[in-house]
Order: sequence, then C-alpha cells, then structure tokens
Amino acid sequence: MAAVVCTSTSERVRRLQEEARTATLDAFLATSDESIAYLSGFRPLQLERLFAVAVPVDGPGAIVVPRLDLGQVADASPLLEPVSYEASSDGLAELAAALDGSLRVGVEEDHLVFGRSEALRDRGLELVAAGEIMARLRWRKDAGEIARVKAACELVERALVRMFDALRPGVVERDVNASVENWLREQGAAEAHPLILFGANAANPHGEPGPRELQSGDVVCADLSARLDGYWGDLTRCGTVGRASGWAIEAWELVREAQAAAIEACRAGVAAREVDAAQRALVESRPELGSCLHGAGHAIGLAIHEPPFLVPRTETPLEEGMIFTIEPGIYQAGTGGIRLEDDVVVRADGHEVLSSLPLELVEVGA
Amino acid sequence: MAAVVCTSTSERVRRLQEEARTATLDAFLATSDESIAYLSGFRPLQLERLFAVAVPVDGPGAIVVPRLDLGQVADASPLLEPVSYEASSDGLAELAAALDGSLRVGVEEDHLVFGRSEALRDRGLELVAAGEIMARLRWRKDAGEIARVKAACELVERALVRMFDALRPGVVERDVNASVENWLREQGAAEAHPLILFGANAANPHGEPGPRELQSGDVVCADLSARLDGYWGDLTRCGTVGRASGWAIEAWELVREAQAAAIEACRAGVAAREVDAAQRALVESRPELGSCLHGAGHAIGLAIHEPPFLVPRTETPLEEGMIFTIEPGIYQAGTGGIRLEDDVVVRADGHEVLSSLPLELVEVGA
Repeated sequence: MAAVVCTSTSERVRRLQEEARTATLDAFLATSDESIAYLSGFRPLQLERLFAVAVPVDGPGAIVVPRLDLGQVADASPLLEPVSYEASSDGLAELAAALDGSLRVGVEEDHLVFGRSEALRDRGLELVAAGEIMARLRWRKDAGEIARVKAACELVERALVRMFDALRPGVVERDVNASVENWLREQGAAEAHPLILFGANAANPHGEPGPRELQSGDVVCADLSARLDGYWGDLTRCGTVGRASGWAIEAWELVREAQAAAIEACRAGVAAREVDAAQRALVESRPELGSCLHGAGHAIGLAIHEPPFLVPRTETPLEEGMIFTIEPGIYQAGTGGIRLEDDVVVRADGHEVLSSLPLELVEVGA
Repeated sequence: MAAVVCTSTSERVRRLQEEARTATLDAFLATSDESIAYLSGFRPLQLERLFAVAVPVDGPGAIVVPRLDLGQVADASPLLEPVSYEASSDGLAELAAALDGSLRVGVEEDHLVFGRSEALRDRGLELVAAGEIMARLRWRKDAGEIARVKAACELVERALVRMFDALRPGVVERDVNASVENWLREQGAAEAHPLILFGANAANPHGEPGPRELQSGDVVCADLSARLDGYWGDLTRCGTVGRASGWAIEAWELVREAQAAAIEACRAGVAAREVDAAQRALVESRPELGSCLHGAGHAIGLAIHEPPFLVPRTETPLEEGMIFTIEPGIYQAGTGGIRLEDDVVVRADGHEVLSSLPLELVEVGA
C-alpha cells in the first residue's frame, strides 16, 4: 500500500492479521483508544472498563465493549463482530472467548495493564510485547489521515492568530487558556490542549497556566493542539509584550534555525535520532541562552504523542507518510522559554509542512 | 487515624510503608497520576514518559520524573527524594535504583503497563498486584479531602443552576456543553466534563454531544463533573422542554426513588453491591420505562472514577470516609434517559450528601 491512498478499517484489520502472522502470533489484541479507533472507527472513552479489538490471524475479529457502549460499535468494520459484557463481568472471559483459542497473542505493551496481562496469562495465553506492529501500521498515515491532521493544523493556526490578535497586557494566563480551549471546542474539536504561558512561567515546558497577568517584557509561548475529526494538530508560536529583549531575539533566532535544521532532516530513511540531533546541536551550542529540555518532537495522528519519538535513543528510520511535530525549544529559568512547532509529513521526495502560519516573533499589542 | 482529620503527604507515605510491610512487600511502586498526587502533592501529566513514587518499606522513598518536570516536584513530601532522568533514558534504570535493592514490589496493576512490568521483572524484581493497598489508603478520605469534594460539588451545582436557567429551545447540544465546560474552567476547574444530552441522545449514558438543537418535548440529562483543587465533584440533574411527558414523569419518579434507596443503603459495613442492589431492584422493576444500563455509582476523589465501584460484583464493605457518586438511571432507546446523581460521604453513623441542589425535574424555559 502506498501512503497516498485511503484505507478502510477492514483493510487495516487485514494488514494487522498479515503482520501478526509474520510475527508468528496467533492473534493481536489492541487495547489503546487510538488503536481501537484505527481498526474499528469507534473511539472509546476508557475509564475502568475494558475495551479491546481482538484479531485472530485466521478468523473473524471482535470488538469487545461494555454493554453500555454496544450501541456505538454498530458501524465497526464488517470484520469485527461486536461483543459486549454485562456490568457483572470484568469483560476478560468475553475477551478470551473472542480470541478463539489463540495462544500466542501480541499486545500493546504500553497500554495493556499488569492486572489484565496477568489475568490473561492465568487463562493460558502467552503474551508478546508487539505494540510496534500496531505502531508501524499507524505511523504511515494514509491520504485521509494526512488531510485530517492538516485540517486540525488549520484550526490551530486560526486559534493562534485569533489569540495573539486579542492578547493585551493585563489578561490572566488561566483565562486566556480557557478561552482558547472554549473556542477550539466550539469549532468542533473533540479535545483541545492550549498551553499558553507568560514570562518566567514559560521556562517550564509543562508549566501550568495560573492567575498571573500578562506584563510588559513578558515572552508568550503558545502551544496549541486540537483533535478534530479524530486527528490532532499541534503548533507553537511565540511573542513578546513590548519591545523584545536581547535574550528573546537571540533565543527565538536560534530556535528558528534549530527548527529549520530539524525539518530539513525529515526525509525517508533518516534515523529519528538524527532529526533530534539536528536541532540539539544548535540549541545546545548556546548554553548562555538556556537549556535544551526535550527532543525534536514526536509523531502525531490519532494520538497527540505517538511513536516514533524524535529523541536521542530512537533508531527508527523515517518513512513516507509519517507525520511529526518538529518543536525545538530553549528555556531559561526565571526568564522564559521559546519554542517553535509545526507538523511535518514525510514524503517520498522529502517532506511537506502541513501548517502555513508564518514564523515570526509576534509583538503583542499594547 | 480517624477519617475526620487531615493527613500530610509524609503521613501517607508512612502509612503506605506500614501497609506494604504487612503485605510482606519490600517496596511499593505507585504509578497512577492520582496515587502520585496523593503521596507527593504533585500531579503529573503523563504521556509516554515514566512518573513514579517508589517507597521501600525501610528506607527513604523517591519521586521519579523526567528532567523536564523536575522543577515541579521540589515541594514533594520530605520523605520523597526527587530523582530525574534525561531524555536519553526511559527512566527504568533510575526507578530500579530508587527501589534500592527491593525484590518483592507491590504495583498498581490497573495502571502499570505490560512493557514496564516486563522490564522490571527482567531486572529481577518480583511484582505483586497490590493496587488495593493504595486504593484502601485513598478510599477513606480525610477531612481536607471531603471538604475539597464538597467544594467541587458546590461549583458543579452552580454550573447546573446557571445552565438550566439559560437553556432555551433552539440551543445546540454541543455549544451548551462547550459553554458549561468553559465556565467551569474559568471558575478554576483544572478539568471539567459536562455531558448534557438532549432527547433521544440522552438514551445513551455515554452519548456524544452533537449539532442537534433542543426541541420541545425533549428531556435533558445533564451530568456535570469538575476537578477543583485536585478533587472531583460529579452531579446529574434532568429537565424537560415544555410539559413533561408521561414517560418522563414516571421515569424521573422511579429514578428518584432508586436514588433515595441507594443513598439510604450507604452505611459503614454494607457491601458495595448492596448499594447497587437497592437501586437496581427499583429500576429493573419497570422494564416498560427502559433499561438499567449501569451500576449505582463509584467512589470519587482524586480520580473521577475510583474503587470501590457500586456494581453487582463488589463485595467491599463501605467504610467511614468513603465518598461515592449515587447515580441510578433509566434509558429508553429513541426516547431519552433520566439519571440523578449526588455525591455522598459515609459517616460513622450513616451518611452525608455533599450536594444540596434540590431534586426536581426542571421545566426548561420557553
């Protein structure tokens, strides 16, 4: 399959069966929200109850859900039989039955929890960590998936423009985040995670928006993501209030160079760690401007963070159809942080940036 | 410890050590967001990176976080040493070192994932499913926790009153949900999950708000939850647009009786399944009004859903300090659903309903 056509959920189930057979598995058990959505079109809301797609390599598969959710899986792939369990069951007996005698079962080791893996082993199953089989299917996006990530990026771009246009000294950090999230939801995002941080708070890439007001001299680091029609878009832009400081200008120029270098490195066949190395060499070259606290980015699609991760330990070569956030940053405690992020799809002959919002250090209106 | 005093994170770590020692464990490994928050005061935002609190029974514990998040754990319990790992590590070596030679390690089996449990076993650890140790500590809320759930309930009550006051035929289901979520966030909720469903969409307890407009004759089933200062409150009220139908009146009266019966059953020493049985006997007595699709409720606190669950298979006896949602419902496909939900704390001599919003079938303004 070329990365440029669309795939049906049935084709995805069949490809999973092939890959599982090649790995000498009897069945594959998908348990993450996103993998279930990929294979069935139904995205569960998982709390304590079990949801799973069970696919024996030689037989019909099943989608296992609490009875409460049975009404929502009628549209699952014709290759997946809906199986439900009552509130009196933990669903494992029904799941084991759906595995239909399979012994060697591939699982998503980053999702299946210890309690369930032990219970399945107690039923005689041999569990094999095989999340990469699922990850490899999901990481080469098809044309429909690329279009959806692009549509999510476009929504996030509009939110960034709107937010920076309205930003004024005196606004409260927490309120700005709530208002952007609300707007993204009103536009149809099923989930939205704005992380807009002011001044010194932006020095922490995972800082929490608080009651602080925007002040003259602040940098603003605005990381916005939204899930639209199942797929995420994720962008970051920065601004300053009043005239940018020497630090802000130098940090921003450095991060822009680092982002360009990492995007340039996004080509089929290049190891994921090389994309990280391209930005890291630049960001770490100026320790007086701050610290390099994270990798170059991560794949994005049905999940906001999915493999491959663009970090020093990832050897995975990039493939056509992969979509990554490219988001280098530099952070100085007490001063602030600068990050620039776009979403980039790997093409046969290079790459395509899915967002078109210009890179500029926005000057926030007075 | 009586349930009516507050506990420090250090006391909680010490109690965990005692319980783990009693269970002949060498250490306990907490990995869920909420358990980490309970023991350290720091609530992580977990994506693919490891966060953990590791507590050897005889030695100092550690809180293990990515370097990125080290700045946020300075205030962790004095009994927990902050340990961080670089982007080049998956954190497991640092975690194993923090376990300090412990062999028999209790884990949260509903959270620790298969990939990490296998990696820890490969390092020679014997893992024991011991989530109930942590659950038992967390399920008896102290006075500070009860006060916080009550404060979250008060916020949700205000949101319900506001929402029903403003509701008019013609409003769009999705917009009403977005607006209520926004308001809850503006009031300081770190997370908020409104689920306000109109008409036939309310027949699915996990339905998704859509583009449908509110119409005369609709029931409205409004389930609102919010996390404020770390703790959740969760309430449901219902209304009708125009004169309530015979079905709506009968279903609402039945659910009110079922809720009263389940609340009445909330007493220390009663098995959790008995609370469910109290509502189920009533709801299932009138199949012509609809189906009983879920249990009586669940404990609530740092997590919106936490054990014990009030379902037919839970034998756990209720204890003083436990807080439950009590939320029976009845659902008729094509027509709608009725649910009533309050949060109830088990007291030494009975129970206390933490919310005070009157039970009424709201008549939505024309």
